[in-house]
Amino acid sequence: MSYSVAVAGASGYAGGELLRLLSAHPDFTVATVTAHSNAGQPLLSVQPHLRSLSHLTLVETTAENLAGHDVVFLALPHGKSGELSALLPADTLVIDCGADHRLTDAGAWDHFYGGEYFGSWAYGVPELPAARGDHHSGKQRDALVGARRIAAPGCNASTVSLSLAPGIAAGVIEAQDIVSVLAVGPSGAGKNLKLQYLASEVLGSANPYGVGGTHRHIPEIQQSLVSAGAAAPTISFTPVIVPMSRGILATTTARIVPGTTAAEVREAWEVAYADEPFVHLLPAGEVPRSGDTAGSNTALIGLAVDEAVGRVVIIAALDNLVKGTAGAAIQCANIALGLTETTGLPIDGVAP
Amino acid sequence: MSYSVAVAGASGYAGGELLRLLSAHPDFTVATVTAHSNAGQPLLSVQPHLRSLSHLTLVETTAENLAGHDVVFLALPHGKSGELSALLPADTLVIDCGADHRLTDAGAWDHFYGGEYFGSWAYGVPELPAARGDHHSGKQRDALVGARRIAAPGCNASTVSLSLAPGIAAGVIEAQDIVSVLAVGPSGAGKNLKLQYLASEVLGSANPYGVGGTHRHIPEIQQSLVSAGAAAPTISFTPVIVPMSRGILATTTARIVPGTTAAEVREAWEVAYADEPFVHLLPAGEVPRSGDTAGSNTALIGLAVDEAVGRVVIIAALDNLVKGTAGAAIQCANIALGLTETTGLPIDGVAP
Amino acid sequence: MSYSVAVAGASGYAGGELLRLLSAHPDFTVATVTAHSNAGQPLLSVQPHLRSLSHLTLVETTAENLAGHDVVFLALPHGKSGELSALLPADTLVIDCGADHRLTDAGAWDHFYGGEYFGSWAYGVPELPAARGDHHSGKQRDALVGARRIAAPGCNASTVSLSLAPGIAAGVIEAQDIVSVLAVGPSGAGKNLKLQYLASEVLGSANPYGVGGTHRHIPEIQQSLVSAGAAAPTISFTPVIVPMSRGILATTTARIVPGTTAAEVREAWEVAYADEPFVHLLPAGEVPRSGDTAGSNTALIGLAVDEAVGRVVIIAALDNLVKGTAGAAIQCANIALGLTETTGLPIDGVAP
Amino acid sequence: MSYSVAVAGASGYAGGELLRLLSAHPDFTVATVTAHSNAGQPLLSVQPHLRSLSHLTLVETTAENLAGHDVVFLALPHGKSGELSALLPADTLVIDCGADHRLTDAGAWDHFYGGEYFGSWAYGVPELPAARGDHHSGKQRDALVGARRIAAPGCNASTVSLSLAPGIAAGVIEAQDIVSVLAVGPSGAGKNLKLQYLASEVLGSANPYGVGGTHRHIPEIQQSLVSAGAAAPTISFTPVIVPMSRGILATTTARIVPGTTAAEVREAWEVAYADEPFVHLLPAGEVPRSGDTAGSNTALIGLAVDEAVGRVVIIAALDNLVKGTAGAAIQCANIALGLTETTGLPIDGVAP
Repeated sequence: MSYSVAVAGASGYAGGELLRLLSAHPDFTVATVTAHSNAGQPLLSVQPHLRSLSHLTLVETTAENLAGHDVVFLALPHGKSGELSALLPADTLVIDCGADHRLTDAGAWDHFYGGEYFGSWAYGVPELPAARGDHHSGKQRDALVGARRIAAPGCNASTVSLSLAPGIAAGVIEAQDIVSVLAVGPSGAGKNLKLQYLASEVLGSANPYGVGGTHRHIPEIQQSLVSAGAAAPTISFTPVIVPMSRGILATTTARIVPGTTAAEVREAWEVAYADEPFVHLLPAGEVPRSGDTAGSNTALIGLAVDEAVGRVVIIAALDNLVKGTAGAAIQCANIALGLTETTGLPIDGVAP
Repeated sequence: MSYSVAVAGASGYAGGELLRLLSAHPDFTVATVTAHSNAGQPLLSVQPHLRSLSHLTLVETTAENLAGHDVVFLALPHGKSGELSALLPADTLVIDCGADHRLTDAGAWDHFYGGEYFGSWAYGVPELPAARGDHHSGKQRDALVGARRIAAPGCNASTVSLSLAPGIAAGVIEAQDIVSVLAVGPSGAGKNLKLQYLASEVLGSANPYGVGGTHRHIPEIQQSLVSAGAAAPTISFTPVIVPMSRGILATTTARIVPGTTAAEVREAWEVAYADEPFVHLLPAGEVPRSGDTAGSNTALIGLAVDEAVGRVVIIAALDNLVKGTAGAAIQCANIALGLTETTGLPIDGVAP
Repeated sequence: MSYSVAVAGASGYAGGELLRLLSAHPDFTVATVTAHSNAGQPLLSVQPHLRSLSHLTLVETTAENLAGHDVVFLALPHGKSGELSALLPADTLVIDCGADHRLTDAGAWDHFYGGEYFGSWAYGVPELPAARGDHHSGKQRDALVGARRIAAPGCNASTVSLSLAPGIAAGVIEAQDIVSVLAVGPSGAGKNLKLQYLASEVLGSANPYGVGGTHRHIPEIQQSLVSAGAAAPTISFTPVIVPMSRGILATTTARIVPGTTAAEVREAWEVAYADEPFVHLLPAGEVPRSGDTAGSNTALIGLAVDEAVGRVVIIAALDNLVKGTAGAAIQCANIALGLTETTGLPIDGVAP
Repeated sequence: MSYSVAVAGASGYAGGELLRLLSAHPDFTVATVTAHSNAGQPLLSVQPHLRSLSHLTLVETTAENLAGHDVVFLALPHGKSGELSALLPADTLVIDCGADHRLTDAGAWDHFYGGEYFGSWAYGVPELPAARGDHHSGKQRDALVGARRIAAPGCNASTVSLSLAPGIAAGVIEAQDIVSVLAVGPSGAGKNLKLQYLASEVLGSANPYGVGGTHRHIPEIQQSLVSAGAAAPTISFTPVIVPMSRGILATTTARIVPGTTAAEVREAWEVAYADEPFVHLLPAGEVPRSGDTAGSNTALIGLAVDEAVGRVVIIAALDNLVKGTAGAAIQCANIALGLTETTGLPIDGVAP
C-alpha cells in the first residue's frame, strides 16, 4: 500500500529535502505541499530541482489542507508547529522537523526558545539510548514504533548526541566538560534572508556563531546525554559556518574515565553501532569527511584516543538536511508505520 | 532477473559514480570492481562514500577479471579501453565511459587524441537525433536497443550537443559560427594529480583551459551536429573551471536562420524534448542552474531569443558525473538490455 | 598634501573596497563615511575587516555630510546619486560608482534603467579609446585629467569593453555578433538580501541571470565600442554567478575581419596595452585566471585566434570590486587630481 | 636605504606570499628568487599573480645563489633549511618559514618530525610572552631585536598560541586539558600534489586530519605555553580542512581557574594585546571571521566565558599565509632590522 503524505513548509530547504526523499520512497505518495508566502505557486517554481514532482502546486499551510493524509511532515519555523499539530487527528502520523516538541524540560524550552511550550514527543534519533525510566535498556527506536507524534532532531544536536551517547552509556567517558566544535553548511539556517547568510559573506570564510553557551541545541544534547545515563552533562558547543551548502563535521572530545583502556573506549561505540544501518563507526585510524555523506542518511563516526590529553576525540559527519533532518524524519516514519527502517533512504553519499 | 556487472576503473570519480547509481539499481548487481594502482584494497578505502558496497575489494583491471559478467562498464583513462574491450566476449554489453570509441572519424581521433584508433561504437546520448543515413528520422536511442558496444559521451560534448541539436535538426539555427562557453566543476578531470586541480588553485577563481579550438570535445560535438543535419558545423568552445566539485552550465549561442520567428525557434526544442524523461526544456523566462541537477540524470535547458543580436541563447545544466557520464552509461545499458529506460536513475537533483 | 575624502554608501561591498584602498593610499585621508540604515554605527560594526579605520563612525548620506571634502566617492544604489551629486560643489571631485552617469544616451538609460536621467560624466576606464568626435586618437584617460565629475564603470561592462576595444579600434574584428559569457562572483550584486544571493543557492552551482539581451551593462559596452570606432555593435551577453566571492572571468569572442592574419589580430591588443600599468596582455598560449587578480587593480587578458571558426577568443580577468569598481574609481581620482596614476593601487593579486 | 632580499622556495604558496608582501615593502628589494624543479623559469610562469615582479627569473636554491643578500627568507619543505642556512653568513638575516628551527626540544623534534635536528632560533611570534628564564617579563619581540636567525611560526601553532598565552600568563586559565579545533584552508599544505588536496576532494566537504594528538604543531604550541608560564600543558588539537583557499579559524577552550571572574578572564587578553598593532581583541559579544583577515597581517580574537561549563572560548582568525607565515616573517624582519614593526604589512583584510 501507499501512504498519502502532506509536507508543510515545502518551499524551504528541509521541506525540499523531505520531498526529494519521499518522491523516491516506494511506500509514500506526496499528495499535498503547503507553504506560506509561496502558496499558489507551482512547487517547481521554488524547488526547481524536484523535477519528479512537477505536478504539485503549493497551497496554504492550514490544518484543513494538512488533514486527511496518513502522514504529515512539518518543516516550519520554530514555534509554528505546536498550535497547528494540535488541530490534526490523533491517529495521523505527524513528524515535526522543528524544535517545538523536542525538549522534555519546559524550563529549557523557555530559556532557549521562549513562547508557548507544547510538550515533547517521541524523539527522532532511533540509534540513541532510550530515556532511563523507560524500564529497559533499549534505544529511542523502541518508542517510535507505533508512535503518531514524533519530533525530528536538531541537526547539530543529533550529530553531537550520536558522537557521545555510546561512551556515556558504557561509562567510559565523563559527561562533564565535553567540548564540541562543528563545521556546518549554511543550509541549516534555511532560506533566511539575513546578511550573514549571503554568499559573499560565507564564501572564503569560516564564521562562528552562537558562541559561549547560547546555542539552542545545547539543551537538546544534554537531554540525550541524560537519556544515555549522564547525571548533569555540560558541553562547550561552538558551530562554525563554512563554505559548503550542506554537511556537518562535528569534532567532539570528552575526558576518558580514569582506568579505562583505549580498547574499552572504542568498544563502547563498536557495540552501540554494530547493527545500525545508518550510523557507521570507521576503523581505527580513519576519520570521516562530511562530503562523503552528502545526500545520504548515513552518519560516519571516527574515533581516536588521545592518551597525552586523556580525551577521546569523536568526529562525526552527516548531511544536516538528510540524517540531520529530513532523512531522520522519514526513518522515523518508517519505524512508526512498521515499514523496513531503511526503506527509501540512500546509504551512499553523493561525492565528490 | 539481475544482471551481473563489472566496473573497470572503480577507484576514479566516474567509476565511483557508476557504482553509486548501480548500487541503487534494481536490475544490476555489482560483482567485480577493478583498478590499477589501488588493486587489492577494499573499495571503501578509496570510495569512502559508497557504504552500501563495503563488501567489495578492488582487483586488477584485466580482461580475465572483467569476463563472465553480463555488463562491463569501462571508466578508464582515454586510450586504455580499446585494447581491453577487444578481449571481451561479443555478447557482453560493454559500455565505455572513455573517449576511445566515440569518434566515427579516424582523422579527428588522430588530430585530437592520437594513438591507435579502435573504431566507433553506438553513441550514448539517446536524446540526440540519429545519424543521417540511418534511413529514419529517429534518435540515437534507436541504435542503442540491443547494442553490445556503447560509447558513453563526453560530459561537455553531450551538454553542448543537447543544447544545439534540436535547432539544427529543425533548421532554425545555423550550424556555423556557434559559440559555447561552459562553467565546469573540476571532477570532470578525474583524480588527476596536477597543480591546476589543487583546491587552492580552484577555490576563489574561474580558470579557463583548452582555449582557441584545442579542446578534445569539439570533434565530438561536430559529429553530433552532423548527425542532426548540419553540413560543416563550426563552434568556438571554451570551458572554464569554477569552484564547484561537479556540474556543467553551458551557455551556447547560435545564429537564428533569417526569417525564423522566436516561437518557431522555441518550438524546435519543445518538440524534440517533449517526451524525454531526462531532458527538460524550462518555460520561457526561466534559466537552469547546475546545482539543481546535482546527483541526478537530468539535463535542464533554458532558451532565450536575443532579437537584437539575431542569436538564440541556450543554457544547459547537468551533472557531469551523472547525465554527463555514469548516468548516461546506465541509461544506455537500460535501453540496450530492454529495461525501462529510467530504471534506477534519479530525476531530482540534490539541492541546495 | 593629503586630500580629504568622503565615501557615501560606506556600508556596502563597493564602499568597503573603496575604504580598504583609500586607507592605504598616501595622498588621501578618509574623513567621512556615510550610510543609510547603518548610520550611527561604528564603521567596524559593518566592515569588520577595515581595522585601520576603527576611528570612523557612519553618518547619514546627505549632501551636508558630504560637502567640504576634496573628493567624494558615491557607492550608492543605482538612481540614488543623480540628485545627491547635483547638490555638491562643482569644484569637488565626485566619482560615482553607480550607473547614474555612465550612459550618454538618454534612451538607453530609459530602456535599461528608467527613472530620471541625470546626464553622463567622464567615463572611468582610462585605458579605453576616447570617444570619436573628441578630435584626437587618445584614450578615455585624457578626458579624466582635471575632471570633477567621473562615472566609474560597471564591472562587467569594463571587463568586456577592455576585451574588445583594441580589436575594434584597429579594425581587426567585427563589431557585430559578438558573444560574451562571464563567470562572476556574487559580490557584484552588493549586500542584496535576495534568495538568489544566499550562500546555499550559490555554493556548488553555476547560476546564469539577465539572459537574452536584458542585462543593464549591454548599452554601456556598446557605448564603449562606439567610442572605439564601431558603427552599430551587437553583443550577446550572459553573466553566470559562480561560487567565488569576487572576480570576473569574461570569455568574449568576435569574428575576425576577413583577410586579417593572426599576428595582426594579436598586435592590436599588444599595441593598445603595451604601456598600460593595469591592463596586461598575456603571452600567446597563456590564459588568465580571475583568482590571480583578487584584491588588485590589474586586468589580465589572454587571446587566442581560433582559425577554424574565424573568431578571436579574448579572456579577461579582473576583480569586480577593484579594477571593476573601487580601484577604477581611485585610478580615475589619481588622474583627475594629477597624481601618479598608479598611486595606492596594488598590482599583485592575493592568490591563492 | 633598501635591503636586498632573497627568497628561497619562491615557487610555493608561502614563497609567493612573501614576494607579494615584499614587493610592496618600502625598505626591501627582492633581488633573487630560487626554486627547485622550476629553476630557470620566469617567476610569473609559476606565480602569475605577481605582476610587479615580472622581471625576476627563478634560479636554483643553493647557498651560492642566496649569499650576498641582506635578508634571506627560506620557504622550503621541512628538513631542507637546516643544512642550507648553516652555509649562510652569520650576519645575514635568515628567516626560516619551515619548522626546522622552531622547537627548542630535540626530543620533540625527533618525535614529531625526525631527521637531523639543527637547533632552535628566535621564535617569530612577537606578541607572545618571552620564554621564562629570559629574566624579564617581556615578549618574544624582545629576542627578535637584532636577531640574525629567526624561525617563523607554524600557522596553526601561532593561531592557537596567540589564543591561549594571555590567559596562561595571567594565571586565569588552566594549561591542562585545553581543546582546540581549527577550520583551515588547504593552502597551508602548499602545492602538495596529493589526492586529499584536490579541489574535488575539498569542495563541499569538511575534512579533518592529524586527529588524536599526532599533529606536528602540538609541541610548538606547548613550547609557547611553557614560555607563557605553563608547567606541563596538554592540548587536544584537531584541524579540519574546509573549502576556502586561505584562512584559519581556531576555536579553543580552556578551563577557567576556579575563583576567577569573567571580567578577570577578559582582562588578561585586553592587557596582553592592548598595544599590539596586529592582534586585536574584539569587544565582548563579537566573534571574528577568518575572511575578514584575508591578505592581512591581522589576527582577530573573540572571547566568551561559558559559565555553565567553566571554560573560556577563544576564537582566533588569521590568514595562514600572512600572519601565519609570510607576514609574520616580514614583521620579524622589520623588528630584527630596527624598522618600524608594521612597515609594509596590511592591517585591513580583503573582504568579502
